Amino acid sequence: MDVFLKENERIDDLELKNLKIIQNKSGFCFGMDSVLIANFAKKIKKGSKVLDLGTGTGIIGILLCGKTQVSKIVGVEIQEEVANMAKRSIKLNHLEEKFEIIIGDIKQLENKEKKDFFDAIITNPPYKKENEGLKNKNVEKIISRHEVKANLEDFIKAGVRNLKDKGEFYMVHRPERIVDIAENLRKYKLEPKEIQFVYPNINKGPTMVLVKAVKNAKPFLKVLKPIIIYNLDGTYTNEILEIYNKN
Amino acid sequence: MDVFLKENERIDDLELKNLKIIQNKSGFCFGMDSVLIANFAKKIKKGSKVLDLGTGTGIIGILLCGKTQVSKIVGVEIQEEVANMAKRSIKLNHLEEKFEIIIGDIKQLENKEKKDFFDAIITNPPYKKENEGLKNKNVEKIISRHEVKANLEDFIKAGVRNLKDKGEFYMVHRPERIVDIAENLRKYKLEPKEIQFVYPNINKGPTMVLVKAVKNAKPFLKVLKPIIIYNLDGTYTNEILEIYNKN
Repeated sequence: MDVFLKENERIDDLELKNLKIIQNKSGFCFGMDSVLIANFAKKIKKGSKVLDLGTGTGIIGILLCGKTQVSKIVGVEIQEEVANMAKRSIKLNHLEEKFEIIIGDIKQLENKEKKDFFDAIITNPPYKKENEGLKNKNVEKIISRHEVKANLEDFIKAGVRNLKDKGEFYMVHRPERIVDIAENLRKYKLEPKEIQFVYPNINKGPTMVLVKAVKNAKPFLKVLKPIIIYNLDGTYTNEILEIYNKN
Repeated sequence: MDVFLKENERIDDLELKNLKIIQNKSGFCFGMDSVLIANFAKKIKKGSKVLDLGTGTGIIGILLCGKTQVSKIVGVEIQEEVANMAKRSIKLNHLEEKFEIIIGDIKQLENKEKKDFFDAIITNPPYKKENEGLKNKNVEKIISRHEVKANLEDFIKAGVRNLKDKGEFYMVHRPERIVDIAENLRKYKLEPKEIQFVYPNINKGPTMVLVKAVKNAKPFLKVLKPIIIYNLDGTYTNEILEIYNKN
């Protein structure tokens, strides 16, 4: 089908059920973190309503459409330009009935009627503290990577506010924030149930952590087997190839 | 040298600088967790005063005498019988000048004079909640494994109370308690700085976690490379052989 592409934009094939995504070559392009969190959340039950906080180009929602049988995904994105790319990707994939984009601030999201509560929340929030490290000059990348518009606690608060009792909260983040994550999840009654660390190889510290928490659940945490990205010879591990459907 | 051994007791060679330990064959014998936490803490600075909370048979303190140049170790143990074994092991290793055992409750330890503050705390506390799982019938094992006499929070409180400003707190525990650990450390101003997970092999979830926290430090956490115990063919990894001085 025809779809409008702006300057610097390209269409990438996700190699999953013929799904595609529009990305801006000079903007924020999705990484392995989005692929891993969508894969981590693939057990979200059939018919679930899912809220994606800070949806960006819509990559997680589009992957969930390929990996799960959820009935509805709502993606919230504060950057209008990026949200519009997500909308065009949704059209390109004929997912308009299933995947809706709201342009707005996750901090303003209010869900006053209980019937609208979501079954699951998924999020790949900015990892870095607002003033941490050298910032990229591209504003879009800064907002996607740094806690400029909303921080970790804002994402957790927005999640719990829109999640039904015993609903699931999925997040990918940096391992060095795991203590902040644990502390904030507990503070907002999201009990961590599964944590999985992603190591570049077996000789390196992890670069990502995947977390599943359940609203108002009793404490019982499982730390899962490690995900290891590369073998020591630099090739991808079978697990990664499988997640990328290359095996 | 001569040392008094009770029924069921034996002397084990630690294969480290000729150090030995007395253990009770039907009681709690030290495991890999003690070896790994002593190894994790081997960078404790020369001349440090170290407090070992719940010292048991004294295994961690004895290993620290072999791996570090600390000036003093105080081990606190509530079980008189076990503490006496530790005392005899200290004598057997001629460590009376360096390693002192106090029989008592870690919850009662009070350090009123600042000059007595410790440079580092090390602990291998009971892992299981008081009522968790089937308890062993051996009372000594129960107290060593279950939070009967003191729980995680008690160990952290006793640690921070006896630790100097910017002093180091080392603990080995179960990964499923990592959220409780993070929450309690922050609560008592022990900022987690290093976390390392120990996996039986690369296809299994971790069975131990090593944690280093620093009193009144700023947040900056590093999650370290994984420790993997077995290769997939069932042999020990080189890292474990090195820790056990078998390489």
